[in-house]
Amino acid sequence: MGAYDAAVIESTANPRIKAIRRLHTAKGRREAGRTLIEGPNGLEALRSGALRPTDILLLEGDMDTAAYASAVGVQAAVVSQDVLASASDTMHPHGPLFVVEIPALGAVRSRPTVCLVDVADPGNVGTIVRTAAALGWDVAVHGSTADPWSPKALRSSAGATLRVSVAISSDPPADASSAGLASVALVVAGGSNPRPSELPVLLLVGSEAHGLPAAMVHAASDAMTIPMSDDVESLNAAVASALAMYALGGGAFFGGSQ
Amino acid sequence: MGAYDAAVIESTANPRIKAIRRLHTAKGRREAGRTLIEGPNGLEALRSGALRPTDILLLEGDMDTAAYASAVGVQAAVVSQDVLASASDTMHPHGPLFVVEIPALGAVRSRPTVCLVDVADPGNVGTIVRTAAALGWDVAVHGSTADPWSPKALRSSAGATLRVSVAISSDPPADASSAGLASVALVVAGGSNPRPSELPVLLLVGSEAHGLPAAMVHAASDAMTIPMSDDVESLNAAVASALAMYALGGGAFFGGSQ
Repeated sequence: MGAYDAAVIESTANPRIKAIRRLHTAKGRREAGRTLIEGPNGLEALRSGALRPTDILLLEGDMDTAAYASAVGVQAAVVSQDVLASASDTMHPHGPLFVVEIPALGAVRSRPTVCLVDVADPGNVGTIVRTAAALGWDVAVHGSTADPWSPKALRSSAGATLRVSVAISSDPPADASSAGLASVALVVAGGSNPRPSELPVLLLVGSEAHGLPAAMVHAASDAMTIPMSDDVESLNAAVASALAMYALGGGAFFGGSQ
Repeated sequence: MGAYDAAVIESTANPRIKAIRRLHTAKGRREAGRTLIEGPNGLEALRSGALRPTDILLLEGDMDTAAYASAVGVQAAVVSQDVLASASDTMHPHGPLFVVEIPALGAVRSRPTVCLVDVADPGNVGTIVRTAAALGWDVAVHGSTADPWSPKALRSSAGATLRVSVAISSDPPADASSAGLASVALVVAGGSNPRPSELPVLLLVGSEAHGLPAAMVHAASDAMTIPMSDDVESLNAAVASALAMYALGGGAFFGGSQ
């Protein structure tokens, strides 16, 4: 099936387009169990991951996406720029757009895992997921952490969310214990210097504004602080998480099953 | 001088407000040699840095900023929310707003320095400056790198741009050589594993889309690659730069004169 065998949608009121627009909100994504991923990076991420899209929109002439749709057996729809703009979560979409099912989030496993505790900014969440995927870490989310499956977080992850194991943790230090992981709280001051860990680690990363809850730092096996200037400097949350993962792993990539 | 001794500006057509609005564009900043920094983070950054603002806008009742204006001898202006919104670079400003002179950018010094080569995203530029300040590195800019003094880059730097040495480099490997620095190209594949460097380093970081120019990689003393998953993963430019600085420094903070 080539691009020109695809359906053509010319109205923003088309039910298929309306169903996609509902995925712009957290409520809509939760109800549908689906989200959006867009652009050439989205296509790249889907090609190299295990998820299959359930719907695809493309602009006329986008042969790459048409070939991919054909390969995975999804009937794509060719849409106008206006319809794409209506379906897209971005301001100036160039297509393509994919709908994917949000995988069921599992439990914390016995692997190096970065646990996001109330991390508020979707860009930081996505960037941390991207770093975790590149360095071979799992991801866990806790509390009020921004949805890693929102289109904005997915964009910042460069699609890495499709390739990484994401767990939900209701009690991170306890979950670490059950999984045989050391829990390490990343704190802005007062923790020990980063060093490679002998055990796999559940790394706890707190909110940009308030850090980790004191009780969670207290319950963790250890606390770690990145050495920094004495000025009032602090690090971006995604940068601090990256340095912590890198240091705990001794600079190594952790391969392993997804 | 308290807040209520300050001037009061009620019109968005006031010449002082118009002069501030011109700083929203690169051209306006270049012509004036000034830029804007906003919000409580801006105040914090100015308090802990060496720069003095040349103008200050605040909302009525902002006693912190009024006290700071008094301490540094600047006659602040109390403005309405409408006037603040007109002067501000942000969508929903809460004040205060400071005008600062952009320092003359110097030459590369004999200190660990991260050199941004065509880094396009102001958020990445600001985040890299923030990391450099926290880890004690200087910053250099080359080519089409986004202006580190734009309001957006300043915000992402959390004001660290006010506290770090920023140089312009027209030929980074040659400048490294003159300053007695090893030049290390950060490349996505094919470089050696990160390790602490014996010499201080000029770390070359390329554009998000295209990396470093091949000729510059060739001219550098060494090339370095962060170990990553075999998938098509890549790291965010600010994260990759942070890991490289951290690894080259052996995890240490480099103190030193600004």
